[in-house]
Amino acid sequence: MQHMDNHGHPNGAAASQNADGVWHNLKPAPGLWAADVAVPEGQSACVVVQQGQMAWVGPEAQLPAAYQALPRHDARGALATPGLVDCHTHLVYGGQRANEFAMRLAGATYEEVAKAGGGIVSSVKATRAASEDELFAQAVPRLQALLAEGVCAIEIKSGYGLALEHERKQLRVARRLGEAFGVTVRTTFLGAHALPPEYAGRSQAYVDLVCNEMLPALAAEGLVDAVDVFCERIAFTLAETEQVFQAAKKLGIPVKLHAEQLSDMGGSALAARYGALSCDHIEHLSADGIAAMKAAGTVAVLLPGAYYTLRETHLPPIAQLREAGVPMAVSTDHNPGTSPALSLLLMANMACTLFRLTVPEALAGITTHAARALGLQDSHGLIASGRPANFVLWPVGEAAELAYWFGHKPAGTIVRQGRIHGVMP
Amino acid sequence: MQHMDNHGHPNGAAASQNADGVWHNLKPAPGLWAADVAVPEGQSACVVVQQGQMAWVGPEAQLPAAYQALPRHDARGALATPGLVDCHTHLVYGGQRANEFAMRLAGATYEEVAKAGGGIVSSVKATRAASEDELFAQAVPRLQALLAEGVCAIEIKSGYGLALEHERKQLRVARRLGEAFGVTVRTTFLGAHALPPEYAGRSQAYVDLVCNEMLPALAAEGLVDAVDVFCERIAFTLAETEQVFQAAKKLGIPVKLHAEQLSDMGGSALAARYGALSCDHIEHLSADGIAAMKAAGTVAVLLPGAYYTLRETHLPPIAQLREAGVPMAVSTDHNPGTSPALSLLLMANMACTLFRLTVPEALAGITTHAARALGLQDSHGLIASGRPANFVLWPVGEAAELAYWFGHKPAGTIVRQGRIHGVMP
Ligand SMILES: [Zn+2]
Ligand SMILES: [Zn+2]
Repeated sequence: MQHMDNHGHPNGAAASQNADGVWHNLKPAPGLWAADVAVPEGQSACVVVQQGQMAWVGPEAQLPAAYQALPRHDARGALATPGLVDCHTHLVYGGQRANEFAMRLAGATYEEVAKAGGGIVSSVKATRAASEDELFAQAVPRLQALLAEGVCAIEIKSGYGLALEHERKQLRVARRLGEAFGVTVRTTFLGAHALPPEYAGRSQAYVDLVCNEMLPALAAEGLVDAVDVFCERIAFTLAETEQVFQAAKKLGIPVKLHAEQLSDMGGSALAARYGALSCDHIEHLSADGIAAMKAAGTVAVLLPGAYYTLRETHLPPIAQLREAGVPMAVSTDHNPGTSPALSLLLMANMACTLFRLTVPEALAGITTHAARALGLQDSHGLIASGRPANFVLWPVGEAAELAYWFGHKPAGTIVRQGRIHGVMP
Repeated sequence: MQHMDNHGHPNGAAASQNADGVWHNLKPAPGLWAADVAVPEGQSACVVVQQGQMAWVGPEAQLPAAYQALPRHDARGALATPGLVDCHTHLVYGGQRANEFAMRLAGATYEEVAKAGGGIVSSVKATRAASEDELFAQAVPRLQALLAEGVCAIEIKSGYGLALEHERKQLRVARRLGEAFGVTVRTTFLGAHALPPEYAGRSQAYVDLVCNEMLPALAAEGLVDAVDVFCERIAFTLAETEQVFQAAKKLGIPVKLHAEQLSDMGGSALAARYGALSCDHIEHLSADGIAAMKAAGTVAVLLPGAYYTLRETHLPPIAQLREAGVPMAVSTDHNPGTSPALSLLLMANMACTLFRLTVPEALAGITTHAARALGLQDSHGLIASGRPANFVLWPVGEAAELAYWFGHKPAGTIVRQGRIHGVMP
C-alpha cells in the first residue's frame, strides 16, 4: 500500500480549518455525550468550540448568550459522536505480509511460509531495515485510512524492532505521526512482543535487556506512555511479564497486557495487580481474571479483527464481563500478521456480529471505554465541556447505523484537535 | 444513511473526465488481463482508450506507432485490474434495518422484532411506501460506496415490492442509477423473493401472479435482464421455482437462483437444467448440484457477507467446486437484513478468510467470474482490447494486498465507461 491522499494534502492537519464557533443542529449519539448534558428527545444540541476546546455543550435552546454571536456551523441534524479512539494498534512497521496471506491460502505450510521469509520475523526484519522516514511514509496511508473514519486518538505500539535503536525508531515515528496529522497518539513500548532471532533460546537475557536497558532509555527520551507484554505460551511467561511490569512500575509508567488470547495464562489477574490500564484479546479469560480486572478498574479490550483473521472459535466471556461491569473497549489491533484491519467501524460491526456486543456497547467500545484503556478518560471519548474538540458528524439517521452497515466509511465532518476535516453533511 | 458526496458531484458521471489516451506504466494484475496479452515480468503495460473502448492492451514496449502520439496518462507503476463487478445485490429498497440489528443484539426475540415491525416485511412496507425518487435518493450513497471502491458493473434485484407497481419502481430505479452514475447495471426480477403479507397462505396464487402478470409486464418494459427466485424452505418450493423458470424461458430471459443457502433443496440442479447464469449462496450444495452446474456452465456465487452476518457455520463446498472447475464469483449480497455490506474488497477478504478461497480465486471472483454470472463475460471483468474501458489503478505493491487489508478502500483512479473517477496514484 502506497501513500496517496485523495484530498491532496500530504499533511492531514495543515490544510484543515479552525473549528471555533457554535456547532448547532446536532443530534447527540445516546450515551456518548456527558451524562449531565440533558438534551430532550427530538431537540437538537450545540457544541461551542473555542480555542480548540469544547467550551460548552448542551441543548440548542439553552445556548448561553455569551456564545450567540459566534460563527455558526450548521450540522443539519447530523448525528454527533465523540472522535473515535483506536486503543490497540501496531501501526508502525516495515513491509506488509500480503504474500504470506496468499501463500497460506494456497496451502503453504507454516514451515514453507517461514522458509519464504514469512511470519513475525519478516516484519522485524523489514522494520529494522527501514529508516525512520521510510517507516513514517509506510504508516501514513494506514493512519489516514483510520483518520478518515473519524479516529481522533490512537495507540501505537513498538514491538517489531526488538532492539533499542529499532524500537526507538518505531516510537519516534509514532510521535511524529501524531504531530504531523494533528491526532492524539499514545505510544506503548512492547519490547516484549517476541523473542528476536538473535536471542533464540535466551529469553531471560532478552527480558533483562528490555527491562534494564531498552525501557529506561526510551522512557528517558519521553517515548513511552505505557508498557505492554505479549504473555502467551508462544511468547513470554507470566514471570517474565511480571519482571517487565516491575520495571515499568519503577519508572511510574502504566502497563497493559496482551493476555489470554490463545490460552488462560493468568496474565490478566497479574496485570490487574499492577493496576493495568487494559488487558487485551482475553478470549480465554477466567472468572478470577474478570474479578481482578473489575477490582482494578482495568479495561477489557476486545480485538475481533484478530479473532476473525485467525478463525478463532473460542469467544471472549462477554456476558461475564458485562455482568461484572468491566468496561469493554473494541480496537483494530492493526498489525501485518493477524489483523491487517483498517476500519474501526468494521471492528464495531464485528464486535456485534461475532462477539454479540450490543450496539451501545460497541459504540462505547470505540469511544469512551477505548479512551479509558489509554488513560485518556478525562480528555477523549466523550462529548463534554472542557475537553479538546474531537467529534464526528455522521450522515446517518441513527447511531445503530454506525455498527450496522459494514465495509462502509460514512464519516462526514471530523473535528480533530479543534480543526475541521472532511465536509459538512 | 443519507446522501452525502464528498466530492460535490451528485451525479457521479457528470463531473468526470474522458479517459481517452494511452494509459502507460501499468502493472498488470496476474490473471485479470486477457490471456493473449503477454507482459514480460517486470515490464510495464499499456491500455489505449479510444472513444470509451480499450482499443489496444499490451506491453509498453510494443505500443503500436499509431497510438504513440495520443495523450498520455502515467499510472506510475500502479497495479491495474479490470473494474470490479458486484454480481448479486438488493441495492434498491426503502428504509434500513439498523434498529432491528440493535434489537436482536439486545436480546429481542424474533417475535419481538416482528412486532416492532422488523424483518423483511418492514423492507417491503418501506419500499412500497417510497416514491421512485425517494428510492433513488436512498440508494445513491450505497451505490457511491461501491463505486468508490472500483465497481464498474453491478446487478440490482427487485424483490422488496412484491407487487407489480412496486417491483417496477425498484427496477426503474436500478436503471436510472445506471444512467445517472455511468455504471453498467443488470436488473434482476426477484418477484419470488418472499410471499407478500396479502398472499399469506396463498403461495400458488402469488407465484401465478409473478409468472402470468408481473414478469411479462416488466419484461415488456425492458426492465428485466434476468429472473431470480429464493428457493428455500422459508421461501419458495422447487416446483414453484420451476414454474417461474418456465415463465422466464418462454420470454427468453436467463435465470439465476438463491439456492441451498439454509438447506439442500436441489435448486441448483434445477437451475442448471434451465441453463442458469448462476446459483448463489450454495452453502448446502450437493455433489449432484456441482456436477449439474459444471455441465451447464453455471457460476457459483459465494456470498460471505451473509454467511458472516448470519453467523453460519456450514461452509460452501469450495474444494469440490474448485475440483470440478465451476467458476466461483464473490459478491456483497448487499441487502438490509442479512448483509448490509458496502465493500466488495471486504467480501474478497471474507471469501479468503472464511471460505479459504485463494487470493487469485477471490480476485477473479469479484471481476471475471462475477461478469460471467451476469452474462457480461464478453464485455466486463477482464482487461482486454475491444471492451468498454472499465479498469482500476490501485496504489498497492501487489495484487494480494487487495484481499489482505480489510476495512480499507484503496482505489486510486477508476476508469468507468471510458471516464476518469478518483485521482492518479
Ligand atoms: Zn496486539
Ligand atoms: Zn440475495
